[in-house]
Amino acid sequence: MSSNYRNFRNNVPWLILFLEAIFIVLFYFLFSDDGASISSISYPAFQDVNHMVIFGFGFFLTFLKRYGFSSTGFNLLVIVLGVQCSMLIEGLLVFLLQRENEDGLTRITKAVVSMTAVVISTGAVLGKTNPVQLILMTVVEIIVFRMSRWINNTFLQVPDNISMMHVYLFGAYFGLAVSSRFSEPSPRSEKNASTPTSDLLSMLGTLFLWVFWPSFNSVLVVNDKSKAIYNTYLALAVSAATAFVLSVLTTKDGKFRMTHIHSAVLAGGVTVGYAAHSIEYPWIAMILGLLASVITILGSYCVQRCLNPALKIHDSSGVHFTFGLPGVLGALAQVILLVIKNWTNLTRLGYLVMLHVGAFCVTISVALITGFVTGLILNLKLFKTIPVSKYFEDQFYWEVSF
Amino acid sequence: MSSNYRNFRNNVPWLILFLEAIFIVLFYFLFSDDGASISSISYPAFQDVNHMVIFGFGFFLTFLKRYGFSSTGFNLLVIVLGVQCSMLIEGLLVFLLQRENEDGLTRITKAVVSMTAVVISTGAVLGKTNPVQLILMTVVEIIVFRMSRWINNTFLQVPDNISMMHVYLFGAYFGLAVSSRFSEPSPRSEKNASTPTSDLLSMLGTLFLWVFWPSFNSVLVVNDKSKAIYNTYLALAVSAATAFVLSVLTTKDGKFRMTHIHSAVLAGGVTVGYAAHSIEYPWIAMILGLLASVITILGSYCVQRCLNPALKIHDSSGVHFTFGLPGVLGALAQVILLVIKNWTNLTRLGYLVMLHVGAFCVTISVALITGFVTGLILNLKLFKTIPVSKYFEDQFYWEVSF
Amino acid sequence: MSSNYRNFRNNVPWLILFLEAIFIVLFYFLFSDDGASISSISYPAFQDVNHMVIFGFGFFLTFLKRYGFSSTGFNLLVIVLGVQCSMLIEGLLVFLLQRENEDGLTRITKAVVSMTAVVISTGAVLGKTNPVQLILMTVVEIIVFRMSRWINNTFLQVPDNISMMHVYLFGAYFGLAVSSRFSEPSPRSEKNASTPTSDLLSMLGTLFLWVFWPSFNSVLVVNDKSKAIYNTYLALAVSAATAFVLSVLTTKDGKFRMTHIHSAVLAGGVTVGYAAHSIEYPWIAMILGLLASVITILGSYCVQRCLNPALKIHDSSGVHFTFGLPGVLGALAQVILLVIKNWTNLTRLGYLVMLHVGAFCVTISVALITGFVTGLILNLKLFKTIPVSKYFEDQFYWEVSF
Repeated sequence: MSSNYRNFRNNVPWLILFLEAIFIVLFYFLFSDDGASISSISYPAFQDVNHMVIFGFGFFLTFLKRYGFSSTGFNLLVIVLGVQCSMLIEGLLVFLLQRENEDGLTRITKAVVSMTAVVISTGAVLGKTNPVQLILMTVVEIIVFRMSRWINNTFLQVPDNISMMHVYLFGAYFGLAVSSRFSEPSPRSEKNASTPTSDLLSMLGTLFLWVFWPSFNSVLVVNDKSKAIYNTYLALAVSAATAFVLSVLTTKDGKFRMTHIHSAVLAGGVTVGYAAHSIEYPWIAMILGLLASVITILGSYCVQRCLNPALKIHDSSGVHFTFGLPGVLGALAQVILLVIKNWTNLTRLGYLVMLHVGAFCVTISVALITGFVTGLILNLKLFKTIPVSKYFEDQFYWEVSF
Repeated sequence: MSSNYRNFRNNVPWLILFLEAIFIVLFYFLFSDDGASISSISYPAFQDVNHMVIFGFGFFLTFLKRYGFSSTGFNLLVIVLGVQCSMLIEGLLVFLLQRENEDGLTRITKAVVSMTAVVISTGAVLGKTNPVQLILMTVVEIIVFRMSRWINNTFLQVPDNISMMHVYLFGAYFGLAVSSRFSEPSPRSEKNASTPTSDLLSMLGTLFLWVFWPSFNSVLVVNDKSKAIYNTYLALAVSAATAFVLSVLTTKDGKFRMTHIHSAVLAGGVTVGYAAHSIEYPWIAMILGLLASVITILGSYCVQRCLNPALKIHDSSGVHFTFGLPGVLGALAQVILLVIKNWTNLTRLGYLVMLHVGAFCVTISVALITGFVTGLILNLKLFKTIPVSKYFEDQFYWEVSF
Repeated sequence: MSSNYRNFRNNVPWLILFLEAIFIVLFYFLFSDDGASISSISYPAFQDVNHMVIFGFGFFLTFLKRYGFSSTGFNLLVIVLGVQCSMLIEGLLVFLLQRENEDGLTRITKAVVSMTAVVISTGAVLGKTNPVQLILMTVVEIIVFRMSRWINNTFLQVPDNISMMHVYLFGAYFGLAVSSRFSEPSPRSEKNASTPTSDLLSMLGTLFLWVFWPSFNSVLVVNDKSKAIYNTYLALAVSAATAFVLSVLTTKDGKFRMTHIHSAVLAGGVTVGYAAHSIEYPWIAMILGLLASVITILGSYCVQRCLNPALKIHDSSGVHFTFGLPGVLGALAQVILLVIKNWTNLTRLGYLVMLHVGAFCVTISVALITGFVTGLILNLKLFKTIPVSKYFEDQFYWEVSF
């Protein structure tokens, strides 16, 4: 290990301290009241989302055999910094636009939900970024995502809880755009693999995500919470069953593949996110769950064989097909459901469809462009990118005793 | 591996797809409204039960050293299919009997609680069934369990939340009857064993079950929820303490045995299930917890030494003594408590006792007979039972990288 | 293994049985009503605390490579016995002082919160005590902690939910005092170490504690629950970020150390415990979180290098700097916040400060003195202390198959 890099690593603490100092100072000015008003979000609902992001995603990403410490540890670091950052941006907006202040619990909940975008993006560059790059990416992404939501809210009149559901799409495509600027690992690298134990710990995280997904999709819904829960559960159930179907059909020996299960069981929850509170009949949610699983597993096949090599993207934990494609499907489904519901009133329909398609395009474009620029910046020599030979290696950052 | 088997394995996806197609079509016809009425079950209560079944049982069964993927994965598969199936049967009954429709959350909760029977049964045949057999068993068992509850409700006037608590008994004896038709594994098989890590992951599942058991026992109780919680907690606490006592007393070296702890700490929750909401004094729950633990560990000794070899049953995860015997004890305790409460009114007492004993006998008989028949059917050549040498082996179904 | 020891081990069950018998008999006399009144504590709040203590602490302590079974198993044993013991003491006090009876759920919740003190203390002697010693320590500590709270409540008029927050301080210093009487393990012992897997399982427990800490700090708060939750979350977030900062700065290579992260991410929650419900501005909680993390990591450096060798204390899981020092900081912060709030009214200020300092001194003194005495008693030859060579060894108590 070059001493050059070691010196650089000593900059990590100063970056975090600098951010924390800013955060505390801005909290001092922005949050003079403590938000003691009655919250629209119940504490158990917040707790579920918090649990899901900290614990579920932390362990979802532990599948690499030598990267468990970093997966769970950096996930925690990124979330605690990002949540504070996100709360501040919200506070700044409230201050600048003279809006009404929200209570503390709602503030944290929204921040945690926004952070899902960042956590998904870190999945795409898992094992290839150093902590400085991760932290910078977090701060940039959380700001850009808020900006994209602001455009959606202001110019396209998308309600806040719908624009928040773009979190999957935004996270996936931002992450992909960033990862396109990182070198690909050697295909014969032994470290980019899993062991049965690491796969089982990842399954643990996946099951947590699966169980808490209905909470996630319903936490910001105001009126039809129980409908959102019911539809999300059914979509998840069908996509879990379908995951097993397609895993057998697409592998050589007709065996199940753990990575298929990990990604496809969650696809239903992602797809149904946009429309969960408005779907009237459960069978629609079930069909969406089925399609989500299909698009995930077929997508994983196509993306890994064709798209990624062509674009020279290496997507460590497959966020493109786990969150990106089901997100696109969900946005599409939302538009189709709108068309079916409003086909009698064509003027209104045209307007609504335009808004939704607009919001989708804005989100994707902002994600791709800013992600690409972020990727370029993070690969400046200044940030001492990790040599490819040190990818997926805990020992580079952690004291590990074997 | 014979190509014969491989071809068969390719039928797994078609079975699941077929089931999902039926489910979606029937959901289309049966659940035209989405159950948006106000639920009698709170979302956190449902979430606890969901968590317990998906996560708790998933990891409870990971103790086999080479069967972790299948334990957690197939558990998820079986539950998502079974929950949909169970909801459909309920919907069909509502349609046929012209009963009042329940809301979505109550529907799912009841389905998840019913699925506990199936999950317990799969424990008895853990590692010995292929996925096709598991799925068929799930569908048959969920139908038969609903039938048995229907008999109890209609002819014996057992209230729904009591008949639901037969879930432990039914699951255990159905599973045992099924497993009696499977070949026994070679006693010297190395694969039918645990490692410290797999035991620890199983402990993780056990602790989840332990923590969520009060939620499970109280979720369907209407009036005395807090009493059910309180009594279940105390019964679990005493049975956990007693588990350590008896484990030392029954092992050769006076050491603790992990499998004793896994099964006996839960016994109190099973036993107190029937009566949790009606026990007036906490010391009664505590004594039940103590007796449950005693019957579990002594039972495990007797069952494994005498009963199983005599009947040629191999009970992979010991469901007989973990859920079966404590369930019998619980049913007995319920009758004794009834006798004590109603001994002044002998006519009513006789009637009540007859009802409860009747419900118990119906449940056990239905479970044993249908389980036996199911076991026979599942061992038809058609289903290509797994060769004994491939028992307890993830690699037979999963791509495993070491 | 000497047969001498084996014979002794056979006394473990009789001790547990004896305790259980006493518990059941006293429950019979004390809790004749079942506490069906409406609870001030919601079930989800209790469930969070229960989850945190059973599961979070159980896995938090699994970092030793050969002590996973004992860490999780004995944690469960100690808690179930301690909770019953704690409920009884409360019941006895209600009976003797003719106070009003609490409902069942509140009773269990308070008992579980009190047990945190014992769980923290067991961390200090982790791997060095046999079960008999652990159980005796539990019973003594739970009695003494209640006594110390009683002194605080009666003579110093500290409200109950504040005196309960001394649980961290009491647990840490009682545990340290006990551990000072145990022999130190050989510094070259291989068993007193972690593996990547055991560290990851410990991270799992840590994340659980982190997620549930706001529930813990708010469960007994009556009026300002949401304020307590908000402040605790922010303190935890800042202390988690700071933990990464200081870990890099204090290790030789500038790498992260897992034990630093485990202990320092929680420090904020401990420190803010006393004042969480009364802090008006979130930036104060954030600064407390930052200071807590600093004191934990610098403390771990000083304590392990200077204090422990000087005092011949071996603190297995570092409870001194994980819970002790942040607890002291929290008590100090509470006094400073009082001074700032009440500086206009000097008479009242002096009185309040005296009360708080008094409560702090009483708690620490009682903990140190009784802990020291308990340590002396537990090391009597009667209790057959474990030979140093058998420290940190599951195989000494459990049937372990490799």
